[in-house]
Amino acid sequence: MGLLSDIRIPEDVRAMTPGQMPELAEEIRRFLVDNVSRTGGHLGPNLGVVELTIALHRVFDSPRDTLVFDTGHQSYVHKLLTGRHDFSDLRKRGGMSGYPSRAESPHDVVENSHASTALSWADGIAKANQVRGKDDHVVAVIGDGALTGGMAWEALNNIAESRDRKLVVVVNDNGRSYSPTIGGLANHLDTLRTTRGYEAFLSWGTRALHRSGPPGRFAWRWLHGLKKGLKDVVAPQGLFEDLGIKYIGPVDGHDTEALERALGRAKAYGRPVIVHAITEKGRGYKPAEEDIADRFHAVGVIHPETGLPVAPSRFGWTKVFADEIVKIGRRRPDVVAITAAMLHPVGLAPFQEQFPERTFDVGIAEQHAATSAAGMAFAGLHPVVAVYATFLNRAFDQVLMDVALHKAGVTFVLDRAGITGDDGASHNGMWDMAMLRIVPGLRLAAPRDETTLRAALRAAVDVDDAPTVVRYPKGAVGEDIPAVEELDGVDVVGKFEARVSTGSTSGVTRRVLVVGVGSMASCAMETGEALAAHGVEATVASPTWVLPVPENLVKLCGEHDLVVTVEDGVVDGGVGDMLAQRAGEQGIGTPQVHIGLPVQFLDHASRDHIVRAQRMTAADATRDALAALALL
Amino acid sequence: MGLLSDIRIPEDVRAMTPGQMPELAEEIRRFLVDNVSRTGGHLGPNLGVVELTIALHRVFDSPRDTLVFDTGHQSYVHKLLTGRHDFSDLRKRGGMSGYPSRAESPHDVVENSHASTALSWADGIAKANQVRGKDDHVVAVIGDGALTGGMAWEALNNIAESRDRKLVVVVNDNGRSYSPTIGGLANHLDTLRTTRGYEAFLSWGTRALHRSGPPGRFAWRWLHGLKKGLKDVVAPQGLFEDLGIKYIGPVDGHDTEALERALGRAKAYGRPVIVHAITEKGRGYKPAEEDIADRFHAVGVIHPETGLPVAPSRFGWTKVFADEIVKIGRRRPDVVAITAAMLHPVGLAPFQEQFPERTFDVGIAEQHAATSAAGMAFAGLHPVVAVYATFLNRAFDQVLMDVALHKAGVTFVLDRAGITGDDGASHNGMWDMAMLRIVPGLRLAAPRDETTLRAALRAAVDVDDAPTVVRYPKGAVGEDIPAVEELDGVDVVGKFEARVSTGSTSGVTRRVLVVGVGSMASCAMETGEALAAHGVEATVASPTWVLPVPENLVKLCGEHDLVVTVEDGVVDGGVGDMLAQRAGEQGIGTPQVHIGLPVQFLDHASRDHIVRAQRMTAADATRDALAALALL
Repeated sequence: MGLLSDIRIPEDVRAMTPGQMPELAEEIRRFLVDNVSRTGGHLGPNLGVVELTIALHRVFDSPRDTLVFDTGHQSYVHKLLTGRHDFSDLRKRGGMSGYPSRAESPHDVVENSHASTALSWADGIAKANQVRGKDDHVVAVIGDGALTGGMAWEALNNIAESRDRKLVVVVNDNGRSYSPTIGGLANHLDTLRTTRGYEAFLSWGTRALHRSGPPGRFAWRWLHGLKKGLKDVVAPQGLFEDLGIKYIGPVDGHDTEALERALGRAKAYGRPVIVHAITEKGRGYKPAEEDIADRFHAVGVIHPETGLPVAPSRFGWTKVFADEIVKIGRRRPDVVAITAAMLHPVGLAPFQEQFPERTFDVGIAEQHAATSAAGMAFAGLHPVVAVYATFLNRAFDQVLMDVALHKAGVTFVLDRAGITGDDGASHNGMWDMAMLRIVPGLRLAAPRDETTLRAALRAAVDVDDAPTVVRYPKGAVGEDIPAVEELDGVDVVGKFEARVSTGSTSGVTRRVLVVGVGSMASCAMETGEALAAHGVEATVASPTWVLPVPENLVKLCGEHDLVVTVEDGVVDGGVGDMLAQRAGEQGIGTPQVHIGLPVQFLDHASRDHIVRAQRMTAADATRDALAALALL
Repeated sequence: MGLLSDIRIPEDVRAMTPGQMPELAEEIRRFLVDNVSRTGGHLGPNLGVVELTIALHRVFDSPRDTLVFDTGHQSYVHKLLTGRHDFSDLRKRGGMSGYPSRAESPHDVVENSHASTALSWADGIAKANQVRGKDDHVVAVIGDGALTGGMAWEALNNIAESRDRKLVVVVNDNGRSYSPTIGGLANHLDTLRTTRGYEAFLSWGTRALHRSGPPGRFAWRWLHGLKKGLKDVVAPQGLFEDLGIKYIGPVDGHDTEALERALGRAKAYGRPVIVHAITEKGRGYKPAEEDIADRFHAVGVIHPETGLPVAPSRFGWTKVFADEIVKIGRRRPDVVAITAAMLHPVGLAPFQEQFPERTFDVGIAEQHAATSAAGMAFAGLHPVVAVYATFLNRAFDQVLMDVALHKAGVTFVLDRAGITGDDGASHNGMWDMAMLRIVPGLRLAAPRDETTLRAALRAAVDVDDAPTVVRYPKGAVGEDIPAVEELDGVDVVGKFEARVSTGSTSGVTRRVLVVGVGSMASCAMETGEALAAHGVEATVASPTWVLPVPENLVKLCGEHDLVVTVEDGVVDGGVGDMLAQRAGEQGIGTPQVHIGLPVQFLDHASRDHIVRAQRMTAADATRDALAALALL
């Protein structure tokens, strides 16, 4: 690692010779494979942008010039070139973030890992530079997949408007962001990639038409005089130039010198310009290059040679969904599946195999996913929209105004709900329940185990006059937690007699209702047991459908001296809060303790660490319950 | 009204002769001006689509073919042609909705009046038709302004992907949706409008190049052989065809026969196609045609001849904002304003006049508004994003992940917060407080009068490390309600001694805290007075900043026997709910009664009617308070 280890600041990269760049790129690739295979992380995207990131730092002067990375998981190389070489605790608490982080470096600007935002950030920064009379450049790096997101379009439209801002958009085009990029845009980028031969026609055309005498010369001049110039007419440069944004490309995204030339031209242009770089995801790492399912987009700990998982991660909840939705699909020809560029991660690949004509990948376009689902429901289908919980936030208005207002039977399946941990603040799916509670008519299920997940899905697709939501966390699904008593709307999963005398003067045993939301049911069970050991009688309830709050759960509150709720979502406006409100409305004043996440952004750390740090363990719940009982 | 009055169903329009259409159009225009000037409503947009709507109903067979109108305020003509002629109670309770309404007619599909959704609806319906083996057509009518919204891009990308669905997109291009449409797209549409002359070149070119001998002929054939065809190359048809969607146009949107021909071709094509119709907003109504500020987009009751308001509507809150933000702008060169195609309605026109280089209209693009604001804040400015409250729902994720996560000092000004009434369910700005409460670090002000609005704005722009929100309702601002006591964070605006003895056996006078959120402060004052008349001692509090809940407000709860909160937002998860939660956490168990809107969609009706129907008057609050006191 002779070259890489010398790099502390981007100036060090600029001080090297062009001839050293292939060697530097090779070192970086080896570093990434060695390190990320040990820690897990986003491997494929970073292997694809090695030369591009080198060129960016050689042409532009960060942080004076601002570099913005869309979906920051492609920023590992940027981290290396800005002096961050310790990848040993990547994505672990106290270690390096898997995304840009302002706390780590002045070279990092945007921490949000939701796609399609970089162009808006860049437009804002460029506008501010202009207002403040600064002539620094702003560079946004965005994948072709992220360009399918609506925000990117809104930004392009605005960037085009500003003819005099110094803004460079680098389209990192690998033809697949998560899976092969779909839609008209993908086809268009493909055309751009393959029409460069037209350029050769230009010099020939000039000669040929001039030889052909006055009419030809005139035609040629006329073509030249067209607003967009002959080059654009003969070799259609497409929608970017249609919008009024200068287009440079395509450029080989693994040729540092070509990239530096293109970026240099873009920089000199001094107005908004698009540089179209063709890269290969996973470049230089055979297992990633050869993998069509894009499993190397993000990896757990893998064997660096073979790319096989060292300890296979079990996405149990996702697999149960994948299996059940296929069963439902067989039974119900009207059930269709929609995903937003996440076919494999959300477990819809088996459904697509069985029902290709009933599976729709809309690109990174959650808004369109929700509203087109409302359209499908109107026309007689039952769509199942499967996305990560955190990404449904992007379609709140569409869930509210298109789905709910129109009483559309659409099922949203939220994977990675609750704490996800490693990916940092913007990936935690902790906002869903508090956000969705204000959607009229919406019903939300938080199943606790495999059996209730399957049942919730079956029930959800039977609702044809309202949005339904089924949410579950990342990771392995635990053992089933069977009901010991089934009330309508609520399963009682544990009944614990007090195992010691309370020692209270009255001699009356206190009764506590512990409500475990979704996968927190196991925590609730432990809490119930622990309370019993402290001389308290505990009922543990698990309502699969938490929105609206089940009547029987409200009733149970009235039969206990204290209610403790445990949920892995924000506690403000969460399920406990709703339960207290409903109980209060019915004059049930039983004191309640609500355990969940605060309204705060969570730094990246393991799920277990966050659960402990946020005092959401059974020990915490038990302690809080006993403290509350002491006050009664 | 000889022709119009005979029309009950679209078949009646189809049965007429082409020659009758100009007369029918003339009748419809007269009808619209006569009626809408009496009731108020969306005049300009409907005058612009008279011929277009006629042609749609003559070429397509609604409801078998589905017609979807983006921002349904352009559906008045559609209502007439589907047999709805009673405009006397337009937008009034029990009267016709100002938007499509499924309850009114099987010809109405999409009720959501938020822009840019129609293409997603249409894509969903077309996909469903295909899955279900139906070969009916789906037609979406979308304005050029709505095309600047990100959702439209997401949909276009998906529509392009489907080569075999019967979907017609009609771009109703009037060059201004709310105000002149901005951005690269607008420039592009302008190019499309004016490049039709190129077509004339085609026949000439064939002759000229063929005359020029073999090289010219070869060049011509080669041009012909290009993937997109010569016509597209010489007359660039632009981004729609770049995406792979057939483009027909431009068509004169006021020539029924030309429109029928174009729509007929589009229908016969049997694949996704765009028809580009050029219309004139306000067509045929002089005051509207001549108005550059687009004040006839939506009107109150006006004089039909002059277009002048009969009873000038006072947008008092908006005017106060308009005035104060200019003052702030003079003092603070770093303050910039952002609007999403709503410069005039939100009151930013005066700011733009003073500071054109610091005013940014981003188009109908709330997501971009929020995230580009985060970028500006990063680069040293303080952006003020002014939108209608209901539209901020579209940028929830951006407020959360780009603004709040990045601790960006961005101020959101939410006009038309709370109940708006006439525009129906999707315009009520009732979701904001419950939605924003889960955004970490966000501070929200609900000023009660002119003085507190001005103060809130000044305080908001001084916050540079978190999002701030200032929300106020539609309509006139009332008299100032001065504080009688200023606690830190809470103004006490009323202190009412009990005016009669309670008659309670204990002889102790009950003390009630009435909290009025924002403009509901006047209702809270009335409630306080009424309670005093019933022998209760009342304190009326008005916290301008309600997020986070002020500590002193929590403390006040502990000093009273009952708390009554009044807010014009959803009560679930609202300010009252938050106050109860904070109080509970501090062991303050004072019973609370929360008055506000239920989690339901509200049918269109006047604001006053909704306030009464939802039991949000002072009489309701007084009655509820007394009932709660009786239970203590």
